[in-house]
Amino acid sequence: MRWRCVAIVGVGLIGGSLGLALRRAGAAERVVGIGRNHERLQLAASRDAITDWTTDLSEGVSEAELVVVCSPVDCIAQHVVAALKATREAVVTDVGSTKTGIVARVVARATPRLARRFVGGHPIAGSEQSGPAAARADLFEGRTVVLTPTRGTSRQAIRLVRAMWQRTGAKVVEMTPQAHDRVLATTSHLPHVVAAALAAVTQTKDLPWAGTGWADTTRIAAGDADLWRAILMENRRPTLRELEKFAKVLAEFRSALASCDEQRLRKLLLKGKRHRDALGS
Amino acid sequence: MRWRCVAIVGVGLIGGSLGLALRRAGAAERVVGIGRNHERLQLAASRDAITDWTTDLSEGVSEAELVVVCSPVDCIAQHVVAALKATREAVVTDVGSTKTGIVARVVARATPRLARRFVGGHPIAGSEQSGPAAARADLFEGRTVVLTPTRGTSRQAIRLVRAMWQRTGAKVVEMTPQAHDRVLATTSHLPHVVAAALAAVTQTKDLPWAGTGWADTTRIAAGDADLWRAILMENRRPTLRELEKFAKVLAEFRSALASCDEQRLRKLLLKGKRHRDALGS
Repeated sequence: MRWRCVAIVGVGLIGGSLGLALRRAGAAERVVGIGRNHERLQLAASRDAITDWTTDLSEGVSEAELVVVCSPVDCIAQHVVAALKATREAVVTDVGSTKTGIVARVVARATPRLARRFVGGHPIAGSEQSGPAAARADLFEGRTVVLTPTRGTSRQAIRLVRAMWQRTGAKVVEMTPQAHDRVLATTSHLPHVVAAALAAVTQTKDLPWAGTGWADTTRIAAGDADLWRAILMENRRPTLRELEKFAKVLAEFRSALASCDEQRLRKLLLKGKRHRDALGS
Repeated sequence: MRWRCVAIVGVGLIGGSLGLALRRAGAAERVVGIGRNHERLQLAASRDAITDWTTDLSEGVSEAELVVVCSPVDCIAQHVVAALKATREAVVTDVGSTKTGIVARVVARATPRLARRFVGGHPIAGSEQSGPAAARADLFEGRTVVLTPTRGTSRQAIRLVRAMWQRTGAKVVEMTPQAHDRVLATTSHLPHVVAAALAAVTQTKDLPWAGTGWADTTRIAAGDADLWRAILMENRRPTLRELEKFAKVLAEFRSALASCDEQRLRKLLLKGKRHRDALGS
């Protein structure tokens, strides 16, 4: 499959990497980058992540068969609806880290006929870096992309978005928006808060004694604060539920240590090890 | 500086790596490995981390000028005292992740004359792996080694231990045992508990959706549960104090998210990012 024209709204780490991946795979003749910031668009173009660019969303999507919205999560629904309204047949998808709110807002703001062409999506790939300079053609290789269609979504649209992600080397699964948000609260949003809290509590004067353990455990805390504020706000309730569970396990560790219960401490450490070993390195 | 004979008690990740580093640097003619497990000793010898080995501590240290005790933290003091008693002039050091308890136990169990030859030490280097198979000659390159001598420690002994670590490519600093344990509770023992709690709270059925963020944040949870149980028990009080501070910051995150206080949430995320960025990648 080769597209004549794919439009990417937002050419940061994810949008830029998608452009690079599609260009490298020869999957798109033209990739139109759409954004507000000229410098970022020029940088994405100079890296060959996009072939043309514009700051006008309606103009940018006008010839696209496929529009991928890679904006921050709190702007995605608005950009998706604008792209649906500005096109007659284009399939529109997004890469937001949360899905329930975005899908609900698109459905609320677009007619069912327009919303049929929208497929919610989330590539589980990223880095603590951001911006087009950090984009990599192989960012999605071997990664999982979750699509969250609803009963109103066109099967043809799903097939097209699925095909696009497969060209980047990703594997595609489907879930409900709610199931996605519950799982990601566990595997991504909770770890982000934990890493940020750990980094925040560490005094910078102690950093000369930080080893690889501290560095690994806090790495994602270097992520963009505004992007993450928006993600956490979008997925507030599931994240709060995971934070509550985490706080309970942490309290068990504290209590085992405070009461010198070595058996209990060992069991808790072993449970963590077992789960971590199940992932592999 | 080149030693005729260095003895290493415990040939796991740290002891094995030290042997490899000293051999590679041509710093020791003989490296005697001492342990209980024949297979581990043979593996260390086959990797050239040690030149000879024995399961008898007194015999193993008898010709050594320098003895490095790399046992689990709850065995170190006992092995240090045995090495001091079995030698007349050898300098004895250790690599334990905690220092206050070990130094105090050595001083309590050995005469001041014997204890003069002991220099507490801790190379801030490691990995979630363990055992001689994971040993690497470059494990200490560019890393910091903390020495924790007391007023009773011989300056000559400190110089010798310092020189040994410098041959492995590490930089050496001196601190009190108490200052060491306070700093390491922050930069190592707290992160370990946090990573273990995060891994423990994650259900393995959700792991297919874990990205690099979860993987990094939980990496150290794969560490040996018994080694870490002993480390946390040794450094209980400082670790409990850090856990209390961490729980407070985590509660601030929860409260900001629960009350939709986006400003506060952003400030907390930015604080984490600032501290993480201060370390570098």
